[in-house]
Amino acid sequence: MNKDVVNIGLIGFGTIGSGVVETFNKNLDLLENKVNKRVNLKKVVDLDVKTDRGVYISPEVLSTDINDILEDPEIDIVIELIGGYQPALKFILRVMENGKHVVTANKALLAKHWNEIISCAGKNNVRICFEASVGGGIPLLRPLNESLASNNFESIYGIINGTANYILTKMSDEGKSFEAVLKDAQERGYAESDPTFDIEGDDTAQKLIILTIIGFGKYMKQENFHVEGISSITQEDIRFARDELDCCIKLLAITKLVDANLEVRVHPTLVPMNHLLSSVNGVFNGVYLVGDIVGPIMMYGPGAGMLPTASAVVGDCIDIIENMDPVHYGPTKTPVKKVSDIADLKSKYYLRLLTEDKPGVLHEISGILSKHNISIGSMTQEKAEKGTPIS
Amino acid sequence: MNKDVVNIGLIGFGTIGSGVVETFNKNLDLLENKVNKRVNLKKVVDLDVKTDRGVYISPEVLSTDINDILEDPEIDIVIELIGGYQPALKFILRVMENGKHVVTANKALLAKHWNEIISCAGKNNVRICFEASVGGGIPLLRPLNESLASNNFESIYGIINGTANYILTKMSDEGKSFEAVLKDAQERGYAESDPTFDIEGDDTAQKLIILTIIGFGKYMKQENFHVEGISSITQEDIRFARDELDCCIKLLAITKLVDANLEVRVHPTLVPMNHLLSSVNGVFNGVYLVGDIVGPIMMYGPGAGMLPTASAVVGDCIDIIENMDPVHYGPTKTPVKKVSDIADLKSKYYLRLLTEDKPGVLHEISGILSKHNISIGSMTQEKAEKGTPIS
Repeated sequence: MNKDVVNIGLIGFGTIGSGVVETFNKNLDLLENKVNKRVNLKKVVDLDVKTDRGVYISPEVLSTDINDILEDPEIDIVIELIGGYQPALKFILRVMENGKHVVTANKALLAKHWNEIISCAGKNNVRICFEASVGGGIPLLRPLNESLASNNFESIYGIINGTANYILTKMSDEGKSFEAVLKDAQERGYAESDPTFDIEGDDTAQKLIILTIIGFGKYMKQENFHVEGISSITQEDIRFARDELDCCIKLLAITKLVDANLEVRVHPTLVPMNHLLSSVNGVFNGVYLVGDIVGPIMMYGPGAGMLPTASAVVGDCIDIIENMDPVHYGPTKTPVKKVSDIADLKSKYYLRLLTEDKPGVLHEISGILSKHNISIGSMTQEKAEKGTPIS
Repeated sequence: MNKDVVNIGLIGFGTIGSGVVETFNKNLDLLENKVNKRVNLKKVVDLDVKTDRGVYISPEVLSTDINDILEDPEIDIVIELIGGYQPALKFILRVMENGKHVVTANKALLAKHWNEIISCAGKNNVRICFEASVGGGIPLLRPLNESLASNNFESIYGIINGTANYILTKMSDEGKSFEAVLKDAQERGYAESDPTFDIEGDDTAQKLIILTIIGFGKYMKQENFHVEGISSITQEDIRFARDELDCCIKLLAITKLVDANLEVRVHPTLVPMNHLLSSVNGVFNGVYLVGDIVGPIMMYGPGAGMLPTASAVVGDCIDIIENMDPVHYGPTKTPVKKVSDIADLKSKYYLRLLTEDKPGVLHEISGILSKHNISIGSMTQEKAEKGTPIS
């Protein structure tokens, strides 16, 4: 950037926004020395500029007028952290039309309006960076897009929702039910009061859409792939997985190229205990991927939180300051011929059945499986304790 | 890069060089679409252009004359893969003086001649990229330098030598002696016939020098920090670590900022089994780091090998094509006040003593430790089997 001072505007002074302000407060000197320019957080806009966020901010930086950012010709980079679809989309498009670069953590918006946003960036010759949108503070999308750019990817497996991973980890560590652990997670602030978005896989699906674009150059809408959450996982499943199959259960985002057909899916998955992803526990995220040149890679770290997410947001600002030129967003020509239907996938599958204890039951079940051409990989039978309800 | 065709010269057609040629052969289309330019491997120079490397290369690309690369004004980026100090240094400096960008995997050269090389790049307004020099194919240095640029780092712990890690993993998995596993590693090509450089920590130390620059902006010479290898690790150590301390032994590169004092060291370390680094096994590498904003991050992948290393080298080429502007190399102002002497460190330490079985021995040992103000954290005593030699 051919300027001595870079001006930044921040839309949204919530949790992540406060983290960004704190990061600038704390490490501005480090940043300015790295880019060899002054970096000035010129304006922070929010509807609420009264509530104390616990971070220092000069009063004249705060404003409730969005045009103080959108229409200020001196602002070079705009950070959008209000989330949601509108007015975030309107703001981002306007900002880019005004020749400003954009940094955002808004996975929902990118997942829904990808084509419109990227084509607007291209038309206006500006960059949009969104490292924080997947995997929080983990350097993930840029390494995938840049460091690993020489690879055709074979598969990406991600644990990218901290709430779901926290619940599954606690269920496994403490032997408690899904409901009990969810309540604990809500009390600790790891789960929302309405946890649907996290536990039913929607958040994971939005992030997977972005991973699939960067990894495979293929944009998918969420309604076009299989998304299944963790709310039906029981203690029995976790115990069987561990004791009988030497696996843990993780909510995985999976995207995988098989003979030019792309599998895209989100569901609870049995992960062998000797696989590195089984060590990604608690609120942490981990993404394991395989490239045709590099082989297997994993990135691990905090997938959410005020400061980790701010780390990615401010990292994106530095990236733009050091390179304003347009970059590619994933492969520009996708290797994907067709997206596989979930019904067409060949994969191992886990079935747990609670049956009456009488002769011939196993025979009947195995007969049904056989009729449908399903081969049994591994089987274990346990007597239910007296009084166990049919679930 | 404001050209429609980018010309690349490759110096060194050995293992990694062949991997680079194979990567261009295989994924050129992907690369060219990403950068929206033609990418042309114009010249490959090696003393030996006769031996078949098992990868396709057009005969007119090969040359034994280094000036075909150094002095060709059409070549924009030079990949140096001959390794060692000279003539690699001479070539790299000449290339930069001629206004060409450099990509190298040469950790030894960077570790020894860092200041000269970086200042030459700065003077000539070119970039030098060296992702492949640490951690092979793992996206590591660029994420550290760019994605995580808003962080002051607190610590970096790296398993960055595949040979040493393979030996320690095999010793642990198969209960074999260091010597037996080393022999096996040599047979599989995971260890050199003279393995000193890998097993005594020199390779790890060179990589740590580069990590310390990028992470902490501090350049250290190898003779100024503690480097200790794994050749004295026995089966007993591995067994005690696992059975008594629930740890594994890893050769770690450690750099850590404590009150503005930097600890830099390479030595075998007890890693708790519940730490993610304990899951980095075999020839794989893993680097775990803590940033003041992001918290803990780990990157994992293949730390060596023809194609993984080529993935990093070609990724660097793409980086340069997309951004020719000078970038920073780590913090430009180091937070390090002083480098700690190994003798001044406070740390847990592991001692294994083989003593005569007679009364008063433990009393005497504990007396010596106490006299030197050393507190015992955990102790275990075992009877040696009959015939166990004093080692």
